[in-house]
Amino acid sequence: MKPVKVGICGLGTVGGGTFNVLQRNATEIARRAGRGIEVAQIATRHPNPACNLGMTPVTDDVFELVNNPEIDIIVELIGGYTLAKDVVLKAIENGKHVVTANKALIAVHGNEIFSAASAKGVMVAFEASVAGGIPIIKALREGLAANQIDWVAGIINGTGNFILTEMRDKGRTFEDVLAEAQALGYAEADPTFDVEGIDAAHKLTILASIAFGIPLQFDKAYTEGITKLTTADVNYAEALGYRIKHLGVARRTENGVELRVHPTLIPSDRLIANVNGVMNAVMVQGDAVGPTLYYGAGAGSEPTASAVVADVIDVVRTLTTDPTNRVPHLAFQADALSDLPVLPVDEVNTAYYLRLHAQDRPGVLAKVASILSERGINIESIMQKDVEEQDGLVPMILLTHRVREQDMNDAIAALEALDDIAGPLMRIRVEQLD
Amino acid sequence: MKPVKVGICGLGTVGGGTFNVLQRNATEIARRAGRGIEVAQIATRHPNPACNLGMTPVTDDVFELVNNPEIDIIVELIGGYTLAKDVVLKAIENGKHVVTANKALIAVHGNEIFSAASAKGVMVAFEASVAGGIPIIKALREGLAANQIDWVAGIINGTGNFILTEMRDKGRTFEDVLAEAQALGYAEADPTFDVEGIDAAHKLTILASIAFGIPLQFDKAYTEGITKLTTADVNYAEALGYRIKHLGVARRTENGVELRVHPTLIPSDRLIANVNGVMNAVMVQGDAVGPTLYYGAGAGSEPTASAVVADVIDVVRTLTTDPTNRVPHLAFQADALSDLPVLPVDEVNTAYYLRLHAQDRPGVLAKVASILSERGINIESIMQKDVEEQDGLVPMILLTHRVREQDMNDAIAALEALDDIAGPLMRIRVEQLD
Repeated sequence: MKPVKVGICGLGTVGGGTFNVLQRNATEIARRAGRGIEVAQIATRHPNPACNLGMTPVTDDVFELVNNPEIDIIVELIGGYTLAKDVVLKAIENGKHVVTANKALIAVHGNEIFSAASAKGVMVAFEASVAGGIPIIKALREGLAANQIDWVAGIINGTGNFILTEMRDKGRTFEDVLAEAQALGYAEADPTFDVEGIDAAHKLTILASIAFGIPLQFDKAYTEGITKLTTADVNYAEALGYRIKHLGVARRTENGVELRVHPTLIPSDRLIANVNGVMNAVMVQGDAVGPTLYYGAGAGSEPTASAVVADVIDVVRTLTTDPTNRVPHLAFQADALSDLPVLPVDEVNTAYYLRLHAQDRPGVLAKVASILSERGINIESIMQKDVEEQDGLVPMILLTHRVREQDMNDAIAALEALDDIAGPLMRIRVEQLD
Repeated sequence: MKPVKVGICGLGTVGGGTFNVLQRNATEIARRAGRGIEVAQIATRHPNPACNLGMTPVTDDVFELVNNPEIDIIVELIGGYTLAKDVVLKAIENGKHVVTANKALIAVHGNEIFSAASAKGVMVAFEASVAGGIPIIKALREGLAANQIDWVAGIINGTGNFILTEMRDKGRTFEDVLAEAQALGYAEADPTFDVEGIDAAHKLTILASIAFGIPLQFDKAYTEGITKLTTADVNYAEALGYRIKHLGVARRTENGVELRVHPTLIPSDRLIANVNGVMNAVMVQGDAVGPTLYYGAGAGSEPTASAVVADVIDVVRTLTTDPTNRVPHLAFQADALSDLPVLPVDEVNTAYYLRLHAQDRPGVLAKVASILSERGINIESIMQKDVEEQDGLVPMILLTHRVREQDMNDAIAALEALDDIAGPLMRIRVEQLD
C-alpha cells in the first residue's frame, strides 16, 4: 500500500519529537501499521535544532499544509486556541483527519470541532492532549468500554507534582521549588496554567466527558491551585498518614458529575500517592474492573510524541472504516451523550483537612467541635501540636468525614468568626480513592 | 443497526461475569458501540447461581454455538487447551470472530490460531488473557505503537503476589500463606501453575510477542517459582532497600529476547514494588515514551469480564473494517514478524542477590570475593549478620552488579565447593527497572 502522508503544523518541543519518532522508528511503525507513514510537509517559523529534516519540505504557512491535496492527516502541534482552531477546522473542511496534542483547544472548542469532523466523516484524535505518553484516552474509551465508570482521579500536571514532591521530600517552600522548575524548563515563565490548575482542568474536562459520555464543559470545572500550600500542611498530612497531591477528580453521582481540580490529601499507601516528580498517573474506577491506574511521563518531547504518533497509526487504520463504526470522539455516540449536569462545587461531597490556629486555652476544642457537629460534620481525627506559635496560638489539625461543601463553607465561616481562632483557616479536601 | 449476537462458551467465574456485565451495562455499552450486543446462546454444563439467565437459550453442547448461524462472535471461556482449541478453530472455520480469556491456549497454540483467523479474515481478541481487567494488550499494541519497546516487566499472577505480600507484611511462611490463599479461593487446589510461574510465563509469552513482534514461543520461556523463598530473604531484601516480587521480564537485547519469570528484587521506591495483594501491574519501557505502568485486578469474575466485553466491543467495531487494516493479532503484521531469537537463560544478564552461610572465621569473605572477581563479577554491597546460626555459621548477603547468568552459575558452583560455605546458596535476580 502507498504510504500515508502526514503534515506537521508546529515544530516545537512536541512537533520536533513527533518528527524524530516517525523517522527513527519508521520501520517498526510500518511493520505495525501495515503501511509507511511519511512526513510530507512541515509548517514552522523556527528551525528545531533537534531535528534533521533532510529533504522534508518546510513552509512557514500552516494553511499550505491544510490545503495540500497530497496530505491525508494534519498533525496540529501549534498550541493555543486561535490559529490552532482555524487550522483544525479548515483541515476538517478539506476532508483531512486531524491529530492534536492541544488540551486547551479540545476542552474549550471540542464540541464544535467534533461535530464538524463527524459531519465530514473525518477523525479528530487527541490522545496526547491528556497525560502525555500515557494511553489513558484509549484505555478509558476502548479498554474499559464495558464499564460504567464511577470516577476518575489523576495527577495530570507534571509541574505541580514536581513542586509538591520537592516540598515533601526536601522541606522546600512552594516559591523556591517553582523558581527551580522554571529554571529547569518544567514550568513556563508564566506558571499560572500549571500552578493554578487550569492545565489540569483542561485535561480533566476531557477525561470526564469520555468517562461519563457528557459534552465538554470546561467552564463548569472547579479549579483551585497549589500556591497556598505550606510545608507545614505537607508535614501535618504526612504525620496523619497522607500525601498532598494536586488532583483532578471527576465523579459520577446520582445528581450529576463532580468536576474539580484541587490539592488533595490521599492515604500514603495508595499507589497514586507514590507518584513523584514530573510523572503523571490517572486512576479509573469502573463498576466491573474495579480500580485501575495508568502511569507515565505526562509531558516532554518524545513521551508526548509517542501519543501523537499512536494516534496517527490509529487514524491510518480507520481510513477504510465505515465512519459510523469508529470509536466515537467522546467514547459515546454523539447522539447518545448524557445530559447529566456538572454539579456546582457547593454540591460536592468530600472529607476535609482543616488547619486552624487557636488560643491555647480550655474550651476552644469544645467550641470547634460544636460548630462542626451542629452542621452534621463528623470529626475523624484531631491532632494538636504543643508548639506554641506567636501570640499564644497553637495549630490544631482536624480530619472530617465526608460532608457537602456548602455545609463545610458555613462551618468555616463560623469557625473563623470565633474569637479564639486567628486568621483564615486552611482547608484541603481529602479523598480515600478506595 | 441490528444488535450483534454473541455466544458464550463456559459459564464459570469469567463466563458468569461476562454475562452479567453485558446485561447490567447493556445501555451504556450500546451508547458506546453504536449498536446493541445480545447474548444469543450460552453453552454450559453447570448453572451459575450468580446469573439470572432469563430467556437466554442454554445448551450443554459448545458446538451448537459454534455452528449457530445467528451468532457473530464466539466468546471462549472454557479454559484449557483441548476442547477450547477445537471450539476456537471450528468457530474460525465457520467465519466467526472469537474473543477468549485463555492465556494457555494463546501462548501455546496462538500462532496456529492467528494464522487460521487471518486466512478466514476474522479477528481473535484476547485482552483478558493477560492481567485480567488491565487493558495492557491494547496499551502495548495500539497505545505505544510509536515506540520501539525496550522491555516489559510485570506482576502478572495475583496468587503469587498475594503470597509475597503476606510474607513481607506479616512475616508468614510461604506454606502458611498458600494454604490461606487456597481457602480464600485465590489459589487453585493444585497451585503449580501459579506458584511455579507457569501461568505468568503464559502471559509473559503473549506480552513479549506483542512488544517485540516475535512469534509466540512459550517453550523457550525460563520459569522459576516462588516456593523456595524464605521470610529471611524477604527481610534481608527489605534491609537492603528492596522488595521481592515474582516478576515476568521480557527484554530486547542485540542478540535476542530475554523471556523469564522468577522471583526478583526491585528497589522498594519503584511504583511496581508497591503493588500489593492480588493486584497486578505491568511496566513497559518504550524508547519514546520512557517508563509506563498499568495497574489493576489481574483476575476475578467482573475484572476479567471487563476485558472480555471490551474485546467484544472492539470486534463489533471491526466488523466492517477492511481486514488488512485491522490491528494485527501480535501488534505487527503477520508477514513482518521478527526472527530475533529467544535467548537461553545462560545468556541473560542481571544483577544478583546471594545468600550464603559461611563459617564465622577470618578469610572467608576474601575467598568469596576472589571467586566472584575471577569471573568478572563486581560486588555492589555486602551485609553480614552477627546472628550465629547452628554449627558456627553466619549468613552473608551479597548484591552483585549485572553479570551473565552462565558466569554466575560458575561462580556459585565454586562458592558451594568451598569448605567454609554450608549447603546450597540462595540466588535471586535483581532488576532496577529504571
